[in-house]
Amino acid sequence: MTTTQAYVNRSVENGTCTVEFFHPQSNSLPSAILNKLAEEILNAGMDPATRVIILRSGGNKAFCAGASFDELTRIDNEADGKIFFSGFAKVINAIRTCGKIVIARIQGKCVGGGVGLAAAADYSIAIKGADVKLSELAVGIGPFVVGPAIERKMGVSDFSSMAIDASMWRSSDWAYQRGLFAECYPGIEEVDAAVMRLTEFLVNSSPDALTEMKKIFWKGTEHWSELLEERAGISGRLVIGEHARKAIAAALSKVSK
Amino acid sequence: MTTTQAYVNRSVENGTCTVEFFHPQSNSLPSAILNKLAEEILNAGMDPATRVIILRSGGNKAFCAGASFDELTRIDNEADGKIFFSGFAKVINAIRTCGKIVIARIQGKCVGGGVGLAAAADYSIAIKGADVKLSELAVGIGPFVVGPAIERKMGVSDFSSMAIDASMWRSSDWAYQRGLFAECYPGIEEVDAAVMRLTEFLVNSSPDALTEMKKIFWKGTEHWSELLEERAGISGRLVIGEHARKAIAAALSKVSK
Amino acid sequence: MTTTQAYVNRSVENGTCTVEFFHPQSNSLPSAILNKLAEEILNAGMDPATRVIILRSGGNKAFCAGASFDELTRIDNEADGKIFFSGFAKVINAIRTCGKIVIARIQGKCVGGGVGLAAAADYSIAIKGADVKLSELAVGIGPFVVGPAIERKMGVSDFSSMAIDASMWRSSDWAYQRGLFAECYPGIEEVDAAVMRLTEFLVNSSPDALTEMKKIFWKGTEHWSELLEERAGISGRLVIGEHARKAIAAALSKVSK
Repeated sequence: MTTTQAYVNRSVENGTCTVEFFHPQSNSLPSAILNKLAEEILNAGMDPATRVIILRSGGNKAFCAGASFDELTRIDNEADGKIFFSGFAKVINAIRTCGKIVIARIQGKCVGGGVGLAAAADYSIAIKGADVKLSELAVGIGPFVVGPAIERKMGVSDFSSMAIDASMWRSSDWAYQRGLFAECYPGIEEVDAAVMRLTEFLVNSSPDALTEMKKIFWKGTEHWSELLEERAGISGRLVIGEHARKAIAAALSKVSK
Repeated sequence: MTTTQAYVNRSVENGTCTVEFFHPQSNSLPSAILNKLAEEILNAGMDPATRVIILRSGGNKAFCAGASFDELTRIDNEADGKIFFSGFAKVINAIRTCGKIVIARIQGKCVGGGVGLAAAADYSIAIKGADVKLSELAVGIGPFVVGPAIERKMGVSDFSSMAIDASMWRSSDWAYQRGLFAECYPGIEEVDAAVMRLTEFLVNSSPDALTEMKKIFWKGTEHWSELLEERAGISGRLVIGEHARKAIAAALSKVSK
Repeated sequence: MTTTQAYVNRSVENGTCTVEFFHPQSNSLPSAILNKLAEEILNAGMDPATRVIILRSGGNKAFCAGASFDELTRIDNEADGKIFFSGFAKVINAIRTCGKIVIARIQGKCVGGGVGLAAAADYSIAIKGADVKLSELAVGIGPFVVGPAIERKMGVSDFSSMAIDASMWRSSDWAYQRGLFAECYPGIEEVDAAVMRLTEFLVNSSPDALTEMKKIFWKGTEHWSELLEERAGISGRLVIGEHARKAIAAALSKVSK
């Protein structure tokens, strides 16, 4: 574990707002980072100088390892469990309702909630090797909150395959072919060039048209404010169960070794 | 035709319930087998010792050839036609409502209703060469009862392609890429190893989490009890029409040659 | 620009009705052609001698370049804009409601509304090299009218990817793998052989079964009569905006050079 602090940064340049999150443990997400991430995405949505949003994470390894195990292990009641998982609901709902196109730059692996972020973005550009795993069931819970975002992008078949076989990595090629990633490149330079090219195109496109497109892409998800909260309740209940406690403790002891 | 009798077996070991069906004619399905299959899947769902269900068929050739031609040819009124096709509705609804994850082991080709079984399972593991064909239209009917299960897994595009071009085999690779099969392996040993690995993982997973996952996977299909019955009515009406009678007679005479 | 006139032809032979459209500018679509196309598809639907409909375009280059730029540039008020885009709504709704299976023969590239036609058809058979691009955003509008047809066939992920990255060509292989095209062949002879083989099969199939299949394929799209009109209103409003006027003028000057 490095000494670098976790952060969420937001910066705007030439109509493009970049929201970057970071956590020293493989960009895993504790509540504080989730809440700040949702807030900054909503801020970007309201900023008149922002035409398009880039969602990215720090470092050159994992894009996002999902829920913070440190925080999961400290949850000792259902209500706190629901509050924690509501953090993912907030981020996904922020992407959904911010009114602007969100491009995700995926520089590495996505696990659990990290797959949810990649799926929630309107357009994800990934590097080869950005393999994906919906590991929730392996730690005694399930991908309930991120499920609607993943199912929307990939369909119920790929979502349920990933959710059931929670210990299997799926390759970035698989994720590209099944629609999780819109583009996939061998190197990070190509990923960044693709992000820049698309961003420039969008910044120079009709803001009106982009606003209408964002609406039609997300048409039919109006109930997600309630749905994802409801789902957070399921995860919150399961995370204090016996299976989850044992699995999370085992995973933590492996990480700290 | 061999002398081996058709059967449906159910056995439980270490939390895994295996439901196996067999019919000497390429594992085709008469009413008796369909009804027994639905019943045993529901029994497995209610069995407290069962954590996960494996659906498989006997022999090492076809996984399932769909509706029994012998039985189709004997249907002479619309009501009996509806009753026959309701058998497929029962099996799909049993998989849908049994409350447990169903893994299908696909050791060979799937035709017609057999594609429906593979699609209805939560997770299908197939062998290369397990090609698929929705042959219903070629015998004067259509994939009405199995349609919702196939469309749910593959989308309306792949479902309608298969339904329209009812004489064309699609390869197991095609079926894997389009989400009908979650995994696909060159040999039966690898298929069985994958089934065993996944089964063991699920048996040791949180039963609570699995129950909640099964619910969210099938959310939005609550109307299928009525829908599939309605669809059975369409097939039941068509199967006694002139086109179907001629096509089924021609197919039968080819088989018996 | 050649001197050949734009046309829509309808001819029936052996139960197959071929509806062919042509425009000297890469088979782009002005109002007159869109209206005639919708009308002839509905006529084919009502013709008792027609069992199956082939939708094709003239020439051996582009299948369809989408909206006619000549006509777009002449629109100077929102009401006329809506009327123009309603032309695409009419064609898609004609395919949807005509009661017969529509096979599209795709001999070349599809752009904008052309992608919509390929998606609306029940079964599209394309040539390799029939790349696709949803260019609407690049001319200041968006794929609002054709969106529901494309999303229905390909899912929201592929639809939104194409709509967002409006300047990127996607290959015919991509379109085949993602379900826009049901089949894809290296040469036009193979495309035509596949169209003929499928057509013959369908002409000899049960008309009753085909009618019921058409219904279930399009189940759940009953609101498209209103939805696509509403969408035409969005495009109609955007097309007279500053972004669209500049982009269309720039595109026209490029074409005429």
